[in-house]
Amino acid sequence: MKFTCSQQTLTKALNIVSKAVTSRTTIPILKGILLNAADGKLILSASDLDLSIEKTVKEVNVEEEGSIVVLSKLFTDIIRKLPNEDILIEKKEDNSVNIKTSISEFTILGIPPEEFPQIGEIEEEDKLVFEKGIFRDMVRRSSFSASIDDSKGVIIGVLIELEENHVNMVALDGFRMAVVKEEMKNEKRNKIIISSKILNEINKIFSDTEENEDINFILSKKKAIIFFEDIKIVIRLLEGEFIKYKDILPKDKKCAVLINKNLLHEGMERASLFSREGKNNLIRFTITDDMLTITSKSEEGNVKEEIPVSKKGNDIEIGFNSKYIIDALKVLDDEEIVLEMVSSVKPCVIKPVEGNKFEYLVLPVRIS
Amino acid sequence: MKFTCSQQTLTKALNIVSKAVTSRTTIPILKGILLNAADGKLILSASDLDLSIEKTVKEVNVEEEGSIVVLSKLFTDIIRKLPNEDILIEKKEDNSVNIKTSISEFTILGIPPEEFPQIGEIEEEDKLVFEKGIFRDMVRRSSFSASIDDSKGVIIGVLIELEENHVNMVALDGFRMAVVKEEMKNEKRNKIIISSKILNEINKIFSDTEENEDINFILSKKKAIIFFEDIKIVIRLLEGEFIKYKDILPKDKKCAVLINKNLLHEGMERASLFSREGKNNLIRFTITDDMLTITSKSEEGNVKEEIPVSKKGNDIEIGFNSKYIIDALKVLDDEEIVLEMVSSVKPCVIKPVEGNKFEYLVLPVRIS
Repeated sequence: MKFTCSQQTLTKALNIVSKAVTSRTTIPILKGILLNAADGKLILSASDLDLSIEKTVKEVNVEEEGSIVVLSKLFTDIIRKLPNEDILIEKKEDNSVNIKTSISEFTILGIPPEEFPQIGEIEEEDKLVFEKGIFRDMVRRSSFSASIDDSKGVIIGVLIELEENHVNMVALDGFRMAVVKEEMKNEKRNKIIISSKILNEINKIFSDTEENEDINFILSKKKAIIFFEDIKIVIRLLEGEFIKYKDILPKDKKCAVLINKNLLHEGMERASLFSREGKNNLIRFTITDDMLTITSKSEEGNVKEEIPVSKKGNDIEIGFNSKYIIDALKVLDDEEIVLEMVSSVKPCVIKPVEGNKFEYLVLPVRIS
Repeated sequence: MKFTCSQQTLTKALNIVSKAVTSRTTIPILKGILLNAADGKLILSASDLDLSIEKTVKEVNVEEEGSIVVLSKLFTDIIRKLPNEDILIEKKEDNSVNIKTSISEFTILGIPPEEFPQIGEIEEEDKLVFEKGIFRDMVRRSSFSASIDDSKGVIIGVLIELEENHVNMVALDGFRMAVVKEEMKNEKRNKIIISSKILNEINKIFSDTEENEDINFILSKKKAIIFFEDIKIVIRLLEGEFIKYKDILPKDKKCAVLINKNLLHEGMERASLFSREGKNNLIRFTITDDMLTITSKSEEGNVKEEIPVSKKGNDIEIGFNSKYIIDALKVLDDEEIVLEMVSSVKPCVIKPVEGNKFEYLVLPVRIS
């Protein structure tokens, strides 16, 4: 293996594939990146078995075909610190790898590529095409609600649900749930669950690239493959039955509050200065006809925030874990939003004024 | 105590005095900030006994004079998160403190001000005036060389030495030493030692303020006071005898190397990718007539960097802890610098091509 590639091109490619490298593995080769020079192209691959990423680089001059695995962290650090000029990379007979520019020469250990995990092909069951911006927003608005407790089974993942005219992303952790909906024609109905951690990693890849190509999903029973530009991403799906989330969404409401999102967000951030000290971040909403009052207290003091609202229905007093409210406000881009409640012991729904693209359900905390 | 002040003004003042608040103290009142409203002004004070900072705010409307101590972190967090409008702050009879804007109202615990440490006056022995930019540069170029080991006595500090026509700042840790010199007329010769940590904290204060007023030092035996704008800083000096550093500076040289600073810095950053793994960050310089070659190796591989130089004197091969070289290159702003060496077991001096404003001495590591 012997090829020349510009420092900038290599760095970009490494930033992408290194997202699939885990540092916590006990399998040494999974700390590596496979470099494969063939057919005038360079393919970089990395995998932690749950997530595999392949990036094809065409702006490369391959002098000798071949492949080798290099340690991801060391190799990436070296390439990043080199000046932006052409880099010659060559595998030697002893499997060591030579990295050379006009003034620098590195020799690092290489690992034979034979043990590197294969990114397998899958049998296509379904196809999905997302606009890049829509996919990113859907992940951003759903994944934060997934459980972060690895022992909790499928709820560490985001349900991606294909309906006839919609695609939905749903995540929940037992205390709150986010349901994100977009219009999309689908031939078949289907459901898959992808780890929210993996979705956030690949969302970073889409954020880093300027191009606005569509994101192509291919689904099978156990895997999903994403094609995006010269990137191929293979994801192991989470197996299990997702909660029937539609049954949880409240059917009625006794109190609907129209409120300015930024005022509520800022007020919540201040009120949570005290609630952080408490065990369940408790804040209290007292809602009357034209005012939502947030109160919170701890041993260090107390706070009262008043935000004008427009309300329909009953007055209500209800407690929340402030974190769960703030999390939702962070992903809402709307100027005005609606809070819908039934009683102080039933879930509250937060959503934009118009449409059904985002619904967020949060359980109240019992207040005395 | 009752006053009104804008959020922005209060936030700026809190950012300054909070640098003297320590979170690690077992004395609760030292976690606090003293607010003292009197004579139409607000004075904020904080102290960790080694460093005390007082900031006077004139843009304040004092309705009732008085003083109270508030917990620094909580109070600062609250003020920071309030919108930029006028804030009414009032001490109540029970020593609680009320913080009020148009939509927010906080009540927090206050601590009676009686126990708060007094920032004492000192007997003036000497006076020093620095231009702000020069003081900041002198601290930046010296303090990083001080020891970070609190058990090492005065070498955790920076020596500030007043000579007839110069002021010098010197810091060393047993492996390297930085000597920074500026022209200044002084009536008396004097020496003080200030903790490098404290110098860096107060350097941040000077960086945060846009004004270019001079920095006034007043020195006594045990304390130094700095006056800068509306800020008064009292520093407890370190007591003890500083090492006779002038005796350490090499008198002769057998090899002088003129080198581009950025090329050396970038090459060192790359070479140190391997040396980090080693116990003493060992890198090796091999210097011939027109080339400085940096080499380093670890179990993971090896590196060779070649940098053109202009050399006078003997060829030399010498080893260093890469961190100590890189630290110096970070504070040098010159395009070209000079390395002066005697042999592979004697200290190397790094300095700008012209002048004597900065001299950095680093001990070599024995190479086999």
